[in-house]
Amino acid sequence: MSESDLVVRSEHACFGGRQGFYEHPSAACASPMRFSVYLPPAALRGERVPALYYLAGLTCNEEHLPTKGQAHAVAAELGLALVACDTSPRATRYPGDDAAWDFGIAAGFYLDATQPPWSASYRMETHVVSELPSWVERHFPVRSDARGIFGHSMGGHGALTLALRHPDRYRSVSALAPIVAPSEVPWGVKAFTHYLGADRATWREHDATELVKSTQLASEILVDQGMADKFLERELQPERFEAACAAAGQRLRLRRHDGYDHSYYFIATFMADHLRHHAAILGA
Amino acid sequence: MSESDLVVRSEHACFGGRQGFYEHPSAACASPMRFSVYLPPAALRGERVPALYYLAGLTCNEEHLPTKGQAHAVAAELGLALVACDTSPRATRYPGDDAAWDFGIAAGFYLDATQPPWSASYRMETHVVSELPSWVERHFPVRSDARGIFGHSMGGHGALTLALRHPDRYRSVSALAPIVAPSEVPWGVKAFTHYLGADRATWREHDATELVKSTQLASEILVDQGMADKFLERELQPERFEAACAAAGQRLRLRRHDGYDHSYYFIATFMADHLRHHAAILGA
Repeated sequence: MSESDLVVRSEHACFGGRQGFYEHPSAACASPMRFSVYLPPAALRGERVPALYYLAGLTCNEEHLPTKGQAHAVAAELGLALVACDTSPRATRYPGDDAAWDFGIAAGFYLDATQPPWSASYRMETHVVSELPSWVERHFPVRSDARGIFGHSMGGHGALTLALRHPDRYRSVSALAPIVAPSEVPWGVKAFTHYLGADRATWREHDATELVKSTQLASEILVDQGMADKFLERELQPERFEAACAAAGQRLRLRRHDGYDHSYYFIATFMADHLRHHAAILGA
Repeated sequence: MSESDLVVRSEHACFGGRQGFYEHPSAACASPMRFSVYLPPAALRGERVPALYYLAGLTCNEEHLPTKGQAHAVAAELGLALVACDTSPRATRYPGDDAAWDFGIAAGFYLDATQPPWSASYRMETHVVSELPSWVERHFPVRSDARGIFGHSMGGHGALTLALRHPDRYRSVSALAPIVAPSEVPWGVKAFTHYLGADRATWREHDATELVKSTQLASEILVDQGMADKFLERELQPERFEAACAAAGQRLRLRRHDGYDHSYYFIATFMADHLRHHAAILGA
């Protein structure tokens, strides 16, 4: 693809750096895909900086981190680029893809669907792991040897599973209120049944609590969870991942925060800690 | 009105404090009015804290500061409460009130309209100056002797004019990309013609550049302006206020920032400076 495939939707000076919104044709998703990039001041001065990828939760898109994440001040200070993607393809439509807020549009679960019709374009894993970094590293001054990944809720599931499935691609990982055992909770069972089919053996490859039994990461995983999160007991269940990490010898720092809910007010509160976690590992 | 007039729409733990969204019947606006309050950790520990009121710009509402302002971390650190209001009445409707984005709904200009039909409910000055502080000071642990006010664009106009018209009510004032001479620019002329009528003599009482000629504030006024702001030349023209302040002896710190636009990325970048400006004056 040529340089002109990158569409600049808007760019804004921001904390001495630049917040941009872009679109690029996606082979993986068979449609244009939107993404956002924050470049810290160091990148505008010509340095190549580490890139931290953010995966948003159900109903969200590439605008949530830059508009609601309150990440810019600390990313600017640390010299971290922030990249955010969308949560599903948008252009190719299928019957029922907008019938529920937790499946289909804005609910791609960061995997490559194997079941029709979804398999034709719901290939978010290939999009996030391969395609998006190739665009970002071609068009922006970011390092290809210093990628981190984090996310919220469904995006926390995405960050954990993609880091465990591609340990060569990411050096640091963290999550906020992640879905850690999708095979065992309603959101995950619904999504996996449609995207991956009825054979639960295939689900294990996209379930962080299963994956960590066979793959451990070199760096500590940071997870924050609000204890007033209305999805905690039914959908999130961080104790499942905590037990699996302990059994497998994976270093995990799981922090439980009284009073915090599932919102971006929770995310923003602990954002700086996540950026510092990644920067320390990535050498920002 | 009784305590039960306050409707709690939602509350969220946030940076050790609490971000809330509320609604209250408004006599001034003849309708329920929404507002938001951030209480810093000090307030939750029982201290009464200074309150900084934020006035948003055209098309915005009480959610813009908490969702896009990136103010929480510094407000928590400084022990400042943040209060944001809506930009117009919403419930009472008039012909043409949603025909344009720069007049009517979400464009109340923070004044009490004198012309029918607007005068029946577009009384944002009374709402902001009297009614809202009375609710906030009754229901939340904030000080009534330490109010500051700031705003963006139309809200910057509101902050400057309300501080100059009610110097007993506010001890500190600042603005981001404010409309400083509404009598002379298209946004202001349109709004004032409808809300105040054709007699331009009445307009002077709601024009910061005119007001500062006869009233000066004890504290320095901080104004930030992006030089890539697409409204700079046609609607904002900060040099008019700069000249009027210089002539009148009003202390003004006007900062011009190359490359910054009119967006919340500009606002967020300079938010911490504004909070520190107010905290220093209010004794936070």
